[in-house]
Order: sequence, then C-alpha cells, then structure tokens
Amino acid sequence: MTTAPWRDPSLPATARVDDLLSRMTLEEKTAQLYGVWVGADTDGDGVAPLQREMSSDYDWDELITLGLGQLTRSFGTAPVDPALGAQALARAQRRIADAGRFGIPAVAHEECLAGFTAWQATAYPVPLAWGATFDPDLVEVLGDRIGHDLRSVGVHQGLAPVLDVVRDLRWGRVEETIGEDPYLVGTIATAYVRGLEGAGIVATLKHFAGYASSAGARNLAPVRAGVREFADITLPPFEMALREGGARSVMAAYTETDGVPASADPRLLTELLREQWGFDGTVVADYFGIGFLETLHRVAGNPAEAAHAALEAGIDVELPSLKCYGKPLVAAVREGTVPESLVDRAARRVLLQKCELGLLDEDWQPETGSAVDLDSTANRALARRLAEESVVLLDNPDGILPLTPDTRIAVVGPRAADALAMLGCYSFPSHVLTHHPEVPMGVDIPTVLDSLRTELPDAKVTFAEGCGVSEPDPSGIAEAVARASEADVCVAVLGDRAGLFGRGTSGEGCDAEDLHLPGIQGDLLDALLGTGVPVVLVLLTGRPYALGRWQDRLGAVVQAFFPGEEGGSAVAGVLSGRVNPSGRLPVSVPRTPGGQPWTYLQPPLGLAGEVSNLDPTPLYPFGHGRSYTTFEWQDFEGPDAEITTDGTYDVSVTVRNTGDREGTEVVQLYLHDPVASVTRPDVRLIGYQRVDLAAGESRRVTFHFHSDLSSFTDRAGHRVVEPGALELRLGTSSATPQHTTHLTLTGPVREVGTDRRLRCETEVS
Amino acid sequence: MTTAPWRDPSLPATARVDDLLSRMTLEEKTAQLYGVWVGADTDGDGVAPLQREMSSDYDWDELITLGLGQLTRSFGTAPVDPALGAQALARAQRRIADAGRFGIPAVAHEECLAGFTAWQATAYPVPLAWGATFDPDLVEVLGDRIGHDLRSVGVHQGLAPVLDVVRDLRWGRVEETIGEDPYLVGTIATAYVRGLEGAGIVATLKHFAGYASSAGARNLAPVRAGVREFADITLPPFEMALREGGARSVMAAYTETDGVPASADPRLLTELLREQWGFDGTVVADYFGIGFLETLHRVAGNPAEAAHAALEAGIDVELPSLKCYGKPLVAAVREGTVPESLVDRAARRVLLQKCELGLLDEDWQPETGSAVDLDSTANRALARRLAEESVVLLDNPDGILPLTPDTRIAVVGPRAADALAMLGCYSFPSHVLTHHPEVPMGVDIPTVLDSLRTELPDAKVTFAEGCGVSEPDPSGIAEAVARASEADVCVAVLGDRAGLFGRGTSGEGCDAEDLHLPGIQGDLLDALLGTGVPVVLVLLTGRPYALGRWQDRLGAVVQAFFPGEEGGSAVAGVLSGRVNPSGRLPVSVPRTPGGQPWTYLQPPLGLAGEVSNLDPTPLYPFGHGRSYTTFEWQDFEGPDAEITTDGTYDVSVTVRNTGDREGTEVVQLYLHDPVASVTRPDVRLIGYQRVDLAAGESRRVTFHFHSDLSSFTDRAGHRVVEPGALELRLGTSSATPQHTTHLTLTGPVREVGTDRRLRCETEVS
Repeated sequence: MTTAPWRDPSLPATARVDDLLSRMTLEEKTAQLYGVWVGADTDGDGVAPLQREMSSDYDWDELITLGLGQLTRSFGTAPVDPALGAQALARAQRRIADAGRFGIPAVAHEECLAGFTAWQATAYPVPLAWGATFDPDLVEVLGDRIGHDLRSVGVHQGLAPVLDVVRDLRWGRVEETIGEDPYLVGTIATAYVRGLEGAGIVATLKHFAGYASSAGARNLAPVRAGVREFADITLPPFEMALREGGARSVMAAYTETDGVPASADPRLLTELLREQWGFDGTVVADYFGIGFLETLHRVAGNPAEAAHAALEAGIDVELPSLKCYGKPLVAAVREGTVPESLVDRAARRVLLQKCELGLLDEDWQPETGSAVDLDSTANRALARRLAEESVVLLDNPDGILPLTPDTRIAVVGPRAADALAMLGCYSFPSHVLTHHPEVPMGVDIPTVLDSLRTELPDAKVTFAEGCGVSEPDPSGIAEAVARASEADVCVAVLGDRAGLFGRGTSGEGCDAEDLHLPGIQGDLLDALLGTGVPVVLVLLTGRPYALGRWQDRLGAVVQAFFPGEEGGSAVAGVLSGRVNPSGRLPVSVPRTPGGQPWTYLQPPLGLAGEVSNLDPTPLYPFGHGRSYTTFEWQDFEGPDAEITTDGTYDVSVTVRNTGDREGTEVVQLYLHDPVASVTRPDVRLIGYQRVDLAAGESRRVTFHFHSDLSSFTDRAGHRVVEPGALELRLGTSSATPQHTTHLTLTGPVREVGTDRRLRCETEVS
Repeated sequence: MTTAPWRDPSLPATARVDDLLSRMTLEEKTAQLYGVWVGADTDGDGVAPLQREMSSDYDWDELITLGLGQLTRSFGTAPVDPALGAQALARAQRRIADAGRFGIPAVAHEECLAGFTAWQATAYPVPLAWGATFDPDLVEVLGDRIGHDLRSVGVHQGLAPVLDVVRDLRWGRVEETIGEDPYLVGTIATAYVRGLEGAGIVATLKHFAGYASSAGARNLAPVRAGVREFADITLPPFEMALREGGARSVMAAYTETDGVPASADPRLLTELLREQWGFDGTVVADYFGIGFLETLHRVAGNPAEAAHAALEAGIDVELPSLKCYGKPLVAAVREGTVPESLVDRAARRVLLQKCELGLLDEDWQPETGSAVDLDSTANRALARRLAEESVVLLDNPDGILPLTPDTRIAVVGPRAADALAMLGCYSFPSHVLTHHPEVPMGVDIPTVLDSLRTELPDAKVTFAEGCGVSEPDPSGIAEAVARASEADVCVAVLGDRAGLFGRGTSGEGCDAEDLHLPGIQGDLLDALLGTGVPVVLVLLTGRPYALGRWQDRLGAVVQAFFPGEEGGSAVAGVLSGRVNPSGRLPVSVPRTPGGQPWTYLQPPLGLAGEVSNLDPTPLYPFGHGRSYTTFEWQDFEGPDAEITTDGTYDVSVTVRNTGDREGTEVVQLYLHDPVASVTRPDVRLIGYQRVDLAAGESRRVTFHFHSDLSSFTDRAGHRVVEPGALELRLGTSSATPQHTTHLTLTGPVREVGTDRRLRCETEVS
C-alpha cells in the first residue's frame, strides 16, 4: 500500500474517491456494493457469515480479498456479550482490511429501531410509543443514546427509523411506525435522526416508500395508491428527515406501488430523492429486496437483470447478500449489458460515505470495544421517561384511577406477567427469544405485575393469566373470574405477543385479519366484566384494537403499546398515580374490528354517515388522551383574518393546570380546508406542543403558522398553496377543537418547492 | 309552433339541434340538463314530483314551462299497475310537451339492473349471477327483453349495466357487479348493452369510474388507486361496452380517486371518454352526485360552483334534481362565472339524443301503454334459464348431490322460505318492500323450500328457520338441529337479505365489515354439522363469504348468489339433479373473513406465502365450478412458438363429456406474463367459452389469440405489447390449468391504441 492521493486526508473526499475508483478493478468496485450477514463469535474472535446467507459460490476468505462493502448485523442473531461482540467485529474488520488490496473495512450496520437490537442492550419503547409522547426533544435524546451505544461497539450505520405512515391498522409493522399522521411521523422521526446522526451514526430512513399501504394490510402486498396520496401522505416525513435531520442513508422499500417496485423505480430513487431533494448519501436495499425483483415482482428475469434494474433505479448497496450485486453484476458488466458507469456511480457514493466515516484513512483503527455498557443507568432512566410519557389514558369515567394504595387488586391477563409483553418485534429478546427460548433475556424487564406489586406495596395483589395471547383454550378464564370476584378492582393486562413472520400477533409478517383483540382475550374481558367488579383495561399492543364492544363498561382504559424494558414501571406508575399520564394517541382506536383501511385523514366522503351502514368514526380519535389533572384553555389569540398565500399568522393560547397536581397538556393545531381543487382531509395535524405544568401553573403556547403548511398536490401534480378560506383549529384531539380561527388566504395560487416551510414553529412562554 | 328547421326530419340531427339551440333561452337550455324524480299516479293520471326531491324554490307546473330534460323513475318507488303507469307517464309527457314552447318531452329513465325495477316486472338474477353463467349470448337476450319491456311503457333510457370490477368483496354493491375480472365484466356487460340498445333503449354505463375500489369497502369512500390499476382494471369494461356495445350514455361515479372526484374530472369525462374513445352520447350524474361536489367532496363552495365543475368536466345531465343545474347554473351564467358555451355543449348532446329518439319530431306521440305485460311467460323462461346457468356447484365430494328422490330432507336456514331471499337490492320488491312490507309482492317468487317440495314430491321435507339473517337470537337453532337430526340430509339455505342503506346485509349502502356469514348463521351451520347428518350448504348471497371454517366438512356447497324470481326452481333443480350445474365463480370464495381487499388478479407479491402470516389464497378460485358429469380435455393444439408483438396464434382443445348425462363445460383461457416492465397479475382471464355437451359428445374449441390481448399500461402510461415470453393457459379455473403454451413475442415494444383487439374470438365446432 502506498500513500496514494485517496489516502490523503487533506484532499477533498471527491478527489480521494475518484482516485481510489480509478485504481479498483470491476470486482473490487462491486464488492463495495454488497454485504454479508454475519454473526459475531461469542469468544470475540471474529465474525462468520450466517450459513443461510452465503451461497456455495463464495468462500468467505477468498471473498474478502476483493474488499467488502457492508457487514450485516454481527450483533443481531445470537446472544453475544457486547464487549466480546465489539472485539469480534473489530477483529473481523481488521481481517477484511488486511485481506483487500486497499485496506478498507466494511460499513458495519445494525438494526436499532427501539434501541440497538443486540443482547444486553436497552430495549426502549417502540416507535408507536414515541409517537404517543408527542415529544420530539426526548426522542432526539433517544437517538443520541442509541447512536453512542452503536459507536461504542464499532457500528457505523443504524437501520432506523421507520417513516412509514400507518394506512391500515391491521398491518403487523404498525408497532414500528410512529403513527397515522405524516406530520407527527415526520417531526418525531426527524428528532430521532438528529440524535443518531449527531452521535456519528448513519441513519437509514425506511421504507422508501409506500410500504405501509399494502393491500389488505398483508406484509409486502402490492400498494394501491395514487400519486397524490403518495406525495401528500407517504413522502413528507422522508423529506423532513432528510432536510432537517440530515439522514445519510435511505432504504428502498420491498413493495410496489401501482405496478412499479420501489427498488426498480428511478423516478423515486433518483429523480425525486436525488435530483429534486438533493440527497447525496447512499440508498440501500431492504434485505434481499433486489432479488425480489426477480422472484416476487417479476420485473427482472434473473439476478443480473435484477441488479441492473436496481442499480439503474438508484440502489447503491445490496443488503445483506451478494446474490445480485456479486457475480451476476460483474458478468453483466463484462458482457456489456450493464454499463460500468452505473457501478461507478454507486461505488462512488459508498466510498464517499466511507471516506466521511474515516474508513479510508491510513490511521483507521477498529473500535476496541472496551468498557461497553449497552444498558446503562442513563439508558434505563431514558427508557423509563419515554415509557412514562407514552402511556395513554383513554378513559377513566369514574376516576377509578389512580388505584387506592391499600386496595385488593386482581391482576389478570396473558400480558401481565410476561417480560416479553413489554417489547416490540425489533427488540433483541423478541426478535430472537421468541424462537430461541433457551437464550437468557439479557436485560432486566419487570412485568406490569412485578411493578404494580412494587408500586403499591400495601395492596393485596393476586394474579391469574386467564388465557393465552392467541391460544383458543378458555380453561383459565374461570380462575381469572374468581380472582376478580374477590377483588375491589380488576386490572386486565391484554395485548399482543410481538414476533417475526407468524411467531407473534404483532410484528413483521404478523398481520391481523381484523382488529379483534387476539385470541380469546375479548372473551376473557367479557367474563371479567360479568363479575361486576370494576375492570381497568391495560393494553400492551402493537396496534390499536377495536374497543367498541366494551364502550361505557370499563372502569378505565390504558393504552401502552410496547413500552420497553421500563414499561412495567411506567404502566404501574400510571395505575398508582405516581405518573400522571400524558400520552396522546398516534393512531385512532376504532369502534369495530372491520372496515379497514381507515385513518383519521379522511375527506368528508370518508366520514359521511348516510351512504353506508358502516360507521368509520373511531371510538377514541387521533390525538386523544386524558390526565389526572384538569386544564383550562384561556386567552385565545388569533382573530379571523386575511393573510396572503405566502403569509404568516400566529395563534396563541394560555393553558392553565386547574387541578391539584402537576400534569402535561398536549396542544394540537389542526388545519381544515373547506374548499380546495382536490379533496382534502377534513382535518390534519400541522403543529403540536407538550406543555408541562405544575398545579395552578399556566403557560402560553404560540404557533407560528405559515401558509406553506396548507400546501398540497394539485391535479397537475404541483405542490401549491391555494387562496381561499382555511380554519386553524386548536384542539385536545383531532375531534375536539377548542378554538377556531377563520383565515382567508389571498393572492394567486402559489407553487411551493423543496424550500417551503415543513413545520409550524412553536413557542412556550 | 312553426315547422322550423329543427322539426324537419329530413335535415341532419346536428343541423336540427343547432337551429333549436339558437331559439332557446338560457333557462330553456338548462332545463334540458336536469331531471325531476317523480312517481306515477296509481290511477294513471300523470306523475308527481317526489316531495323530498323538489325544493320549495320550484313549482312543478311553472317549471315545465321551460321544458324538462329528464323524468326520473316514475315506476320506481310505489306499486303502480304497469299499464296505468305507462298511461300516467304518457300523460305527463304530453303535459310537459304542451307546457313548453317547443313541445319536447323529457327522456324517461328507469333503473333496470336485474330487470326493470318496477312493480310486477320480472325480477331476474343479479349481475353477479350473469357473471357466473359465462354466457354473454344469453345475457344479450336478457338485455333485449328488458329493453322491450321498458319501451312498452314509454321509457327511453335504462340506468344499467354496472361495469364496476370488484376490488373488495365486502362492498355492498358486489351483487350489482359482474365479478372481479375486467374481461368477464366487459364481455358480459357488452352483451347486455347490445341487447338493451338493440331494443331501442339508451344503455347507461355505470359507475364511471373507480367506484368499486372504495377504501375499506365503505360505499362511496375515497378510492385509492394508481393510474395503472385504473387503466388496466377499471376502465377496460367501459371501453369494450362503448366500442362493441354502442352504449349511448355513461353515468359519472360518486366517488373520488386519489383526490379527484369523478364528477369533476375533465380528464376522465372529456379527455379520455370523448377525445380518446370518441364517445358522443350523454354523460349523466349519479343521483345527487353534482351536489356532492359541494357537500361531500368539497371541491366546490356552493351549488353554482358544483354545477360549473361538473359541466366543465363533462356531465351533461343532473339526475334526478335541479339543485345545481337549475337556478344556480342560470345565475352563474348570467353573472359570467360560467360560460354559456358549456351549457350549449351539454344541451346539444341532450337534444341530439332526443332527436335520435324521435322526441323532436312533430309526430311524436307518447307510448300508450296498452297490453303491457312486464312478467311474460317468455320473461319467466329466460329468468329461469339464466338462474339455472348461474348456480355454481362449489363442492360435492361424496356425490351427495343430486338428492335421492324419496329421501328425508330437513330444509333449514333463514333464506329457505323467504321469497325476498331470491332478489338483489335493485329488484323492485327488495328496493321498496324491505321498508314497505305492506305492499304486495307483484310477481310470483317461489322459495327454495317451495321449489324443492315441487321438485321432489316423494321426499319428506321438513323446515325450520334456525335463525334470522342478521339477528343475534339463537333460540331457533335447537329446532333446526332437531329437524336435521331426523333427516337423511340437511339442506341449509343461508345468505343475505338485500336492501338499501343499512336495511339489508347486501346492497347499496349495506357494506360488510368482514366476510363472516351474516349474523349467527355460521353458528347455525356449526350446530347442524354437529348432528352428523350430511349438510348441503346453499348460499343465496350478494357476495362470497369465507367458508374455510367448514372446509372438508360439508356434504356439498351450492353458491347461487341472488338467482331471481325463478331462482327457487333453479336451485331446487340443481339439488334434485334436473339441472346439471354449469355456473362458474365470477369472484373468488375466500378462506377467511378478513384480509380484504383481495381478488385473484395478484402479482406474485400478493400471493407470496412467507412474508405474512395471512394466507390470501382463496378456498375456491375464480372460475371454479363443478358438474354432475365429467369432462376430458383432449387433443390440445398449440405448440410452443414464436409470434410477433402484432401476431396471432390459435389454441384448440377438444372437450368430451365422458359421463352419462348432458352437461356444460366452461373452457377458460388465462394469460401468464413471466417478466414485464411493471408487475403483472400472475394470471388473468383473456377468453372463455361455454360448451354444452350431450353424454359422450365432444366439441372442439379454438381461441384466436392476438398479442394485443397481452397489452398493459407501462411506466410512461402507454398501453404496450412487450416482446418476451408469455404463457397461454387453458384451464377449468384460474388455479387449475390443463394445458399451457409457451409463446415468445418477438419484435419491438408495440404501442397499441383504441383500435386494438379487446377480445379473444372463439370458435366451437
């Protein structure tokens, strides 16, 4: 190795990479474009490819002599002590660097959706719970913490966050999303990206784009969506997270929209993403997604054609395999069917990112992995705070919550005493332990039952499981009813088991036919209500379920999603009253189990009552959540007015805590557009603000509205602000406006572009 | 009145209409563009506007002095003796003609979906049953019979057929469609149109377009669909029915697609329909659909804006009201906000059609209505034959059908003994009697129970209802179980009650949350199966329901949809063996109640098993149906070959009836496109042929395939034939190919236009 220009840190990255590329063979360049799925040796010696991912065409030791673009998830599939895992990764990187002509290590990437998906790493609440916090500042801290932990073990890239906007609540991956509103998803995800990128980790926006809209909510099923739905619902969170979050990678979605697979769509991956939005990072494939162009989409006849289509569309990196970008791509370039310039384009992007990460520098050293603690006290405190902010009190009509300290409590239900009940599918324990139950958990995860006993030491707490999560066996219901009958209050902890591909009731590949509570849990709830003892329903779920069947019959309803390793304490804290609930629904809770897809972003046609027997209105609307204290909204400022289509306008309100304890209100700003050139949602979220208030305290919240926020995609496909009437509605949920301003936008229709305002800045004083 | 040029039948229609328009005031021209919903007086004196449809702004006698474009459904809402109804309509037309300056009567239109929707008119099987016949020739006769009946009472226009392609089986109007395949819908609907138009009645294609794809299958909910789904699934039946059927009217759909309401979409109603397809008839609004632009779509701020948007888009006629095209439109033209040329354009089309109908001729006379018989012997024979051809034998594993003549039969179920069980929502009795039960039925409708007793006089037939259609009361199940236990076989007749807007379990505004059998009918079936007595399930339904719960447990399964007034006999005939079943499924029968939307037109992605826990494959596939005889397919001709992208190719097969009784096979031709530039359905229907065969007889079926039939909409939005591999699969259903030809299309990509072949011509020898 010489000190060639590409090794010179004083040169611009582009010059270094150009020089490097000019020295590389075709095989070496393509080697930068693929990855191998590996597992770290438990003794720290190195990593080895997972058997299933390496075809017999390749020998690992020989392979890495070409270099290697990516190393996939060395921490992901087996319980490896993090310090030893870091050591194994470092040794593997050293071997890769030593084996190739240029001494360049791989980019190591890992899943980190709800925390680093590794053994003994903190299992945070799932993104749906982040959405419920309406607290981007806290989520930015989360991204930062996860980023630091990833860096501490030598990882460069995190495959998160998920920016899919929920379109059908039955989809198994709803738990991985931030909710059903693009503004909420965009602002929360952008905060996470800022945190992760700020810690030096490449954030990966996924799944680009449309994945959440699959027909029938079946994972990967074709998406039915038009260009306007795509532009106004699906894409905005990505645009915000790139522009304001600075994410450096984007993952192409598995799915197709209207016949065009995302992974073979140059309009999406190149024209929109790079040419219009100016993105200059890397686009990576979802796992095996390039091969799917041949096998599931059939827009390619073989792996080489799939490679060609993906490369041309703009996918730079095949993950976590070399099925298409390995030998098939090299052969296709040699045969002249794929231009080498496409390989160069992708390799340049990968190498620029490696340069930025310091991986081309002569003094590069793999991380040592010393003093690794992936579940620090600080992490746990953050996990707890996030969990506490995410619990949504849906109903408490008679004030049965908080529970009396010395009461008799029957805790029942299949989710009350299972630590895995707290976790989503993309936490290490549920990702791995659901099919390897022999593996120790790795982190301490108190259950709701554990935590309630700790939280209320004077209460008499009994427990009965009642039934399983999804098993049809009703034999345990009688005991649960007996326990409930002997108690003053029954806390029924129901919900999902998160898992992968059919191993759970929620999670990737665990889609629901409808929104009935899984298994016979609804029957258990009916039986408990039959006792006459008040029932507090606690839901640990990956999606909302239909609760209309029990409307007005439950003592209280607490929706906690998957609150993570400190979630037991958070839920018990809400039940005891130690925690004053402040979460708000990031998804609507429906009345009935059918009728999907439906979200709150409906034009009036989607809400009309007389045209169908089906009532689509939710039982609890988007944005809804209760508190143990009371708030008054006062001194609303923002009279009816005219502004231009390029104008600004402030609305303010003072929120006063009129109860006798501290609490948090979430002030939400919705836009109603009475008449437009295309149909518009009746209301949509355009701003929000959490406000923490001591008893008696009041604070003033001001939203700076700009008319850009009323823009949408018109019939010609342009994003425009149209003149005419608008209503700004400040509310406590999407269905409960407290104050309305009637604005009139004046002036011509104004086309807006990528420099438009994406958010409503907010001040609290 | 003078003998002006417009009265001169020797002049071309355009010249007459130009002259007439030049003589009309703005008010008179707009009066041609709206209708009034009326009811005929039962004594034949005339018609009167329905109270609810006339606002107090209008006085009927004064109104008609301007003329009147349309008269809506004078036979539709009350039981009027058809001869008196015809007399009333004729008198009303005479009054309208006499009141205006020009002596022009209205176009009288009526619903005629499953027969003329009038009292004492034949109630034919619903369109879904027509689809099951796979017999366009017979459906053309149906159109002709309905047309003659409409003419006999003075009606000019029929608001049928429905060309919506089913996209979600939960939609209440599935019963009104012809099925889930655009080729089947197109060919059957075109046959109906030919019949109706051939009888001199203006056929109205509806609903243009996209209505069937509403989100969540809620009637009128916004449609999510991309341009390719729209072009390749939704539009083809309309194109065929216009080009090959000669329909003279099109109804704009209520719905919106991707934000653009059909009723305000000039691309759809003008650019595509008129400029590309060359349509020169009238476009009419769906009832109150123009007003919905203001109230449900909010793309208009008031009725005048709604009128403007609709008129500009290309709607010529407002039905059945003058809310927008009445005074608001006149005022808007006077104010200069709507150009009068738009009024002229629409009025010209309406008057051209009136000219064509003879309504501008001096010798015009209203029909007299003498000798009216809307339920003739010929009608009933046709109704019976259609019904017989439409019954689908889904399963008969042990040959329990046909029933033994002298057996003990327990007939049970809420649909066995109710005449209304035979009818869809758009037959007069269910349209009106479901909320006016005091009205006499009008036509004789034997039930399945009646007919079975007639059909099998030596059998001992008992009956118990078991439960209601949708009521949750299980008290009758015990008696049904007792009857079944005493019998040799139990015939369970289950299904839907058709009705309007929540008054039924199927029909307009009667959408299903999921595909569970309505009410507790599934529990009844479970209880009957518990007896151990073989159960023959007969389904009288408006949509398929999930039957996976009873897979391999039923003695036989008969799917009859709504078979019309002669349907009892048809079903009983199949049960007795008098009729050899020949129907084939026009919709897939699913395994499970959830997971919608889903139809068989899936790319591989929509079928893949490993990516989701949900199995979308149907229990009985599209095209499936059994017979009491057996067929062998022999001498398949059509070797693997190359043809050009503008080439033709013949495939032939000989079908032999190898059983000992006559029977009918339906030979189906499916196309599989292994690799394309966009994702394609795994298979889709491109040809079919019913073949009637005596015992031992054989006939040869030849399909003349042209590569136009492989065309689809590419990424640029052009309809193209792509070179490459294709498979032609001759099969007995979409999932059971018998013979496959591998074609290779050679040559360049070929763009095809509106002159391409739309169907596979077929020969039987």
